[in-house]
Amino acid sequence: MFFASDNWAGASDPIMNALARHTDGFEPAYGESSLCDSIETQFQTLFETDCSVFVVATGTAANALALSAVTGPAGTVFCHKDAHIRVDECGAPEFLTSGARMWGLDGKFGKLTPRALETGFQEVPQGVVHHGQPSAISLSQATEWGTIYDLSEINTLSALTHDKGLAVHMDGARFANAMVTLETTPAEMTWKSGVDLLSFGATKNGAWCAEAVVFFNKDYARDFIYRRKRAGHLFSKMRFVAAQFEGYFENNHWLDNARHANAMATKLAEGLDATSFCRTVCPTQANEVFAVIPKKLAEKAQSNGAVFHDWPSLGLDGKERLSEDEGLYRLVCSFRSTEAEIDRFLNEIGA
Amino acid sequence: MFFASDNWAGASDPIMNALARHTDGFEPAYGESSLCDSIETQFQTLFETDCSVFVVATGTAANALALSAVTGPAGTVFCHKDAHIRVDECGAPEFLTSGARMWGLDGKFGKLTPRALETGFQEVPQGVVHHGQPSAISLSQATEWGTIYDLSEINTLSALTHDKGLAVHMDGARFANAMVTLETTPAEMTWKSGVDLLSFGATKNGAWCAEAVVFFNKDYARDFIYRRKRAGHLFSKMRFVAAQFEGYFENNHWLDNARHANAMATKLAEGLDATSFCRTVCPTQANEVFAVIPKKLAEKAQSNGAVFHDWPSLGLDGKERLSEDEGLYRLVCSFRSTEAEIDRFLNEIGA
Amino acid sequence: MFFASDNWAGASDPIMNALARHTDGFEPAYGESSLCDSIETQFQTLFETDCSVFVVATGTAANALALSAVTGPAGTVFCHKDAHIRVDECGAPEFLTSGARMWGLDGKFGKLTPRALETGFQEVPQGVVHHGQPSAISLSQATEWGTIYDLSEINTLSALTHDKGLAVHMDGARFANAMVTLETTPAEMTWKSGVDLLSFGATKNGAWCAEAVVFFNKDYARDFIYRRKRAGHLFSKMRFVAAQFEGYFENNHWLDNARHANAMATKLAEGLDATSFCRTVCPTQANEVFAVIPKKLAEKAQSNGAVFHDWPSLGLDGKERLSEDEGLYRLVCSFRSTEAEIDRFLNEIGA
Amino acid sequence: MFFASDNWAGASDPIMNALARHTDGFEPAYGESSLCDSIETQFQTLFETDCSVFVVATGTAANALALSAVTGPAGTVFCHKDAHIRVDECGAPEFLTSGARMWGLDGKFGKLTPRALETGFQEVPQGVVHHGQPSAISLSQATEWGTIYDLSEINTLSALTHDKGLAVHMDGARFANAMVTLETTPAEMTWKSGVDLLSFGATKNGAWCAEAVVFFNKDYARDFIYRRKRAGHLFSKMRFVAAQFEGYFENNHWLDNARHANAMATKLAEGLDATSFCRTVCPTQANEVFAVIPKKLAEKAQSNGAVFHDWPSLGLDGKERLSEDEGLYRLVCSFRSTEAEIDRFLNEIGA
Repeated sequence: MFFASDNWAGASDPIMNALARHTDGFEPAYGESSLCDSIETQFQTLFETDCSVFVVATGTAANALALSAVTGPAGTVFCHKDAHIRVDECGAPEFLTSGARMWGLDGKFGKLTPRALETGFQEVPQGVVHHGQPSAISLSQATEWGTIYDLSEINTLSALTHDKGLAVHMDGARFANAMVTLETTPAEMTWKSGVDLLSFGATKNGAWCAEAVVFFNKDYARDFIYRRKRAGHLFSKMRFVAAQFEGYFENNHWLDNARHANAMATKLAEGLDATSFCRTVCPTQANEVFAVIPKKLAEKAQSNGAVFHDWPSLGLDGKERLSEDEGLYRLVCSFRSTEAEIDRFLNEIGA
Repeated sequence: MFFASDNWAGASDPIMNALARHTDGFEPAYGESSLCDSIETQFQTLFETDCSVFVVATGTAANALALSAVTGPAGTVFCHKDAHIRVDECGAPEFLTSGARMWGLDGKFGKLTPRALETGFQEVPQGVVHHGQPSAISLSQATEWGTIYDLSEINTLSALTHDKGLAVHMDGARFANAMVTLETTPAEMTWKSGVDLLSFGATKNGAWCAEAVVFFNKDYARDFIYRRKRAGHLFSKMRFVAAQFEGYFENNHWLDNARHANAMATKLAEGLDATSFCRTVCPTQANEVFAVIPKKLAEKAQSNGAVFHDWPSLGLDGKERLSEDEGLYRLVCSFRSTEAEIDRFLNEIGA
Repeated sequence: MFFASDNWAGASDPIMNALARHTDGFEPAYGESSLCDSIETQFQTLFETDCSVFVVATGTAANALALSAVTGPAGTVFCHKDAHIRVDECGAPEFLTSGARMWGLDGKFGKLTPRALETGFQEVPQGVVHHGQPSAISLSQATEWGTIYDLSEINTLSALTHDKGLAVHMDGARFANAMVTLETTPAEMTWKSGVDLLSFGATKNGAWCAEAVVFFNKDYARDFIYRRKRAGHLFSKMRFVAAQFEGYFENNHWLDNARHANAMATKLAEGLDATSFCRTVCPTQANEVFAVIPKKLAEKAQSNGAVFHDWPSLGLDGKERLSEDEGLYRLVCSFRSTEAEIDRFLNEIGA
Repeated sequence: MFFASDNWAGASDPIMNALARHTDGFEPAYGESSLCDSIETQFQTLFETDCSVFVVATGTAANALALSAVTGPAGTVFCHKDAHIRVDECGAPEFLTSGARMWGLDGKFGKLTPRALETGFQEVPQGVVHHGQPSAISLSQATEWGTIYDLSEINTLSALTHDKGLAVHMDGARFANAMVTLETTPAEMTWKSGVDLLSFGATKNGAWCAEAVVFFNKDYARDFIYRRKRAGHLFSKMRFVAAQFEGYFENNHWLDNARHANAMATKLAEGLDATSFCRTVCPTQANEVFAVIPKKLAEKAQSNGAVFHDWPSLGLDGKERLSEDEGLYRLVCSFRSTEAEIDRFLNEIGA
C-alpha cells in the first residue's frame, strides 16, 4: 500500500532491460553516441516536429534549466502559486536562472486561469525596470493537484502569453499521465497548442532517472548545451539516460504505464468517494488522489502499512472546510500499483 | 582499440547486477531508502571515519558542489593550471559557487608543488578585499596527466593550506586508480593526509553515473543537502546511484577495475617506450598514457579503428620539444580494455 | 507640486555642504579614511551599541546585500507581499543572494501580521529540502503603504522569528520617517525590538546616495566586506558617502527632514479627507499619502503641473471599492515639499 | 606626497561645482531627468557616434556589468593575466556574469599581444562544451602597469577577436590618461579601432564616483538596464552622477586633469631614472610610475610622509632582477599632484 509518491516505485522492466542491453562496449561519451542520436530522432517522430532535445536526469534540473533558457536578467516566470517550481525544488529555478522570480498566481486546483494570468501581467508589467522582465509562463501538466489542462485551455493561455512576446513552458513531470487522459497526441498537447519548451518527465512513470528538455521553439535552445553542462548535468556516459528512453518509448510502454497508474488512481478515488466519510477534493484526472479522510482511519491504515502523506489544506477552496477530525491526504499511484493493493487500502479505511 | 576516454566503456557487470537487484519494489525517495543509508555506512567503513556522504551523478557536480561548500563570497580556489575544475567543466565550479575563482598554478604534469602554492598565497593574500577570499586548494588524484601525489606530498600541501585556515579538496575522479598505485588505504590517501573533502568518482571506473562528495570535516557539510538540491542534483529515485555503489564496493570490485585499467595503461606505455619513435612524456601512474607518436602512424592507427585524441602540448615542459611530424596523444585505458586490444594497437603503430 | 517620489528632491543643503567640506585633500580610499571611521562611530553612538556598519549607495544594494548575509543556499525570506524586495528592485534580492525566495505574505497595508508569518512558516517549514531554507523575515519600516509598525508589533514578529532561529531584517529606506512618528530612538526601533540587521536609508530623506547596512548581530557581518565588493558596491572615494552621513546626522538634520516630510504628508492627507470626493485609503503615518481621487480631477491637476503616479489598487482591502471614475494615487512628500505647494495642489483638486 | 592611488584625491572643483549646481529642485528619478539625457548626448557627441550610455558609480560595477552583457552561459573573457578584472575586483566580474572565466594571458607590462591571444583561443576553443564559451576580450587602456596600447595594437587585437565573433571590451578606468598620451580622439581609441563596449572611468581622474558603460555595438545593450538595476546599480537620484559628468566634460576639464596627472608622473619617473640607484621598470605612459627603489630609501621617505605601496614583482620580466635591498613600488599621480610634492619626494629619496 505505497501511495507516498510515484517516485518510490523503482524502474519498470522494459527500462531495466534496455539499460542492460546497452551496458557493454564502447560508445562516445557526453551524448555523442548513436543511441543518443536515435533518442533525439524518436522524440522528433513522437512530437511530429524538428524539436531540439536535451536529456537530463532530474525533473528539477529539467525545469530550472529550461526556465534559464527563457529568462534574461531579472526575469519573471508566471506560474500557479502551488507550482512545483515555486513551492518545491529548493530554489533551483531561482538559482539556475541567476535569480528569476517565480510569480505565483491564483487558480483552482493548480490550474492557471486567463484572468489570473492577466492579473500577473498587470502586477509585473513589461518595460518597468523596477519589476524586472516578464519572461515566460509555466504550466504544469498534470498539475500539483493531479488536474489537467484541456487543449483549449492551453491554447488560450499560450495565446495570451505570446501576445506579450513571452515564452510558454510546460512542466511535464507527469506528461504521460495527462496525455492518456486527454487521449491526445504529444504534438497536440504541446507545440500545436502553443508550448515553446517542455520538461518531459519519465522518472515518475517508470524510468530510473530520465527527463528531457524539449525545445519546439529552437531559438531558445541556442546556448542550452552550455547551460546544461555548467550546472553539472551533462552526463559522460549519457547512454544510460538514452537507454531508459529507448525502453520507455518501446511498444508504447510509457503510455501503458501512465494508463495503468491513472486507472489505479481512479479506482482509489471512486472507492473513497463511495464512502459516506471520505471524499476527494478535486477531480482525479491523472495518477494522484487528494482526499479528505477521517484522521483516525488514515492513521490506522498507516499503522497497518499504508504509506501516504498528509497535504497542506491551505490551497483548498474556501468552500471546502475540514472538520477537526478530518485530514487532507495525497495518494499517488504508479505503474507498480495493483488493484489488490488498492482494495486492501480501501478495506483498511473501511470503505 | 578504444582509448578515447574511460567514460566510453559503459558499466561493468557487478554494477549492472546490483542495479537490477534493486529495481523492484517501493523505497523511500530522495535518498531516504535503507539502501542509501547502507551506502553511507559503507563509505564510513571504507574510510574508517564518521564522514558525511552525499551521492551525486556527475563528476562535475561533485567538484563544483564540493567547492561551493568551502568558498564564501568571492572565494578563491588554488589549483593546478591544468586542473579539470579550471580548464574543463564549462564553468560549473564558477557557476555553482556563485563566482569563485579557480586560480591556476604551475607544477610539472598536473601536480601542485609547495612552491607554486606559496606563490598562489602571495598572489591572492588573505584579508585583501580586492582579491577576494582565499578559500581552498583542490588537488586532482590522479591528475589530468595521469600522475599521482604520494602521501607525503599530500600531507605537505595540506599542512601549508591548513596553516592558512583554508580547506583541502581532492578531485578523486580517478581515486581508485591512484589508490591502487600507491597501495594505500582510502583513509591514508585522504583525511589522514589532511584532505577535508573529496569528490569520489566511480563513473570512470565502471559505474554508470555514481559519484559522491565525502566530507571528512563535517563542518563544511552543514548546508550541503540544500546545495545539492538547489542545483538539481538530488535524485528522487536515488537508490539507482546507491545500487551502483553497492556493486562498486562489493568484493573489492572497484579496486579490481582500477588495477586492471592501470595495468593496461602500463603495458601500453611500455610498448610505446620500447620503440625508437614513440615516447611517453610523463610517468604512467594511473590509467592514462600521454605519448609522442609520429603523426602518420597515429593517423594510420586511427583510420584502422583506433580511437584516441590528440592533446594540447602547451602544458609540456620546455625541454620536451615535438618535431613537426610528431603529435602528442592521450590514450586512456579502462576496466574494459584488453591485452589483445593493446597488442593490436601497438602492432598498428608498428611497435 | 512634485509628489512623484521623495527621490525627485535632490540633496538638502547640509548634505551638500558636508560633501563640499570633504572634497579637498588626500584620504585613504575604499573606506579607510578617518571620516569613514568616524561615521561608523556615529552610527554606534546613535544606535547605542557596537554595531557593524557598511555604507553603500543605493537602497536596493543595501537590501539585497543585507539579505545575502542572512540567507544560505536556497534561502527563503518572509516578507509582505507588497514589499519592495519582492515586487520592485528588479530581482536584485534574488540575484545578489544567488536565488533566495522572497516569500510574500498577507497583511493590511504593507504590514506583516503574526498570523501571516505563522502561515509562512507552515508554507516553508524548516528542514524540508524541497522547500529550501527559511532564513529571515524582512519588515519595511515605514512600509510600502506609508504605514508603520509600532514597537510591540516589531517585538512580536521578531520573537516569532527568533524562535525559529531566523534573522530579522528591517528595510529602513524610510527609517527616519518612521522614527519621528513613533517618537522613539534608533535603538528602540531596531535591536531592542529584536532587529538583527537594518538597511538604513538616507537617500529618500535628503542625501544624494547614502545608505548603510547596520548589523546589530555581528555574526552575520562576517563576510560582508566581500559581499559588498563582489557586487561592485565598494566605492573607492568612499568619503563621498561618509560625508553625506556627516551632514545627515549633524544637528539632527535627518530628523528635521523627516519631520517636515511627514508633516507635509499629513497636511495633504487631511486636506484630501476634508473633501467629500477624495479619501485616503490607509493611515498616513509617514511621508506618503495613498488616496482615492476622481480621475478627472487628478488628470486636471497633472495637466496643471502636479506630478504624482497612480498606484495599483490590487493591494486594497476588499471593502475598499473604487468606482469607475475614481483612481488610486500615491503622493509622496519630502524635505523639499512646501505648505504652499500642498495648498496649491489641494486647490487644483478642488479641495 | 600622496602617491598611493589616484583615488585618494577627492573631487576636483569643476565637478563639485556642477554637483552643487544641480542639487536643488525636483527632477525625475532613476535616470530620467533632462540632465541625464543631456549627458548621454554629450557622450554621443564626444564619441561621434550613436552609442548607448549607462552611468554607474564604481569601476568594478562598470567592468563586471559590461562583461555580463557580452558573456552567455559559461562565458570566457580573455584578458592579460595582470588585468584588474582577473586579479582585483573581488570576483565581481565572475559574480555578476554568473560565473564567467577571466582567462589570463601573457604579455609584457599589462599588454595583451596577438600571439598571447592566439594561445588563449587555442586553450579555450569555440564549440567545445567542456571549456565553455569564448565570449570577449578585455583590454585595459591604460593597463595595470601604466602602459598604453597604440591604435594599431587595438586594431590588431580587435580584428583577431572579431574574426572569432567575440566582443572587444575596453577597461577605461584611466581612459583619459591614455587618450591624452596618444593625442587621439575618443572615437579613434574605441569603436574606430574595433572596441564594442567601454568602461569609461572618471572617478580616478577627478570625479567622486562617475563611470559609464558605453556600448558602440548596441546589440549588446539590449538588456543592460535590467542588468544594472538587478545588481543594485541604478541610482534613484542619478543626476548626482550625471552632474559629475557635466563638470567632467566642461571646458575639457577631463583632459586637463589627465594631462596634468600624466605630466606629474613623467616628472617623477624622470627624476627617479636620473639617479644611479633607482630605475623605472616599464615606460611611464600614463599617470603611474613603477620603479625599483632601494628599500631603505623608500622606507625613509614613507616615514617622512610619503604614501605609496610596494608592488608584487612577480609580474616582472625575467631580465629585471631585484637585489635583496631593492623593492618594486608603484607611485600614482593625480589631478591633485603638484610639482612641489614631487620635488619633495625626489629630495627625500635623495634624487
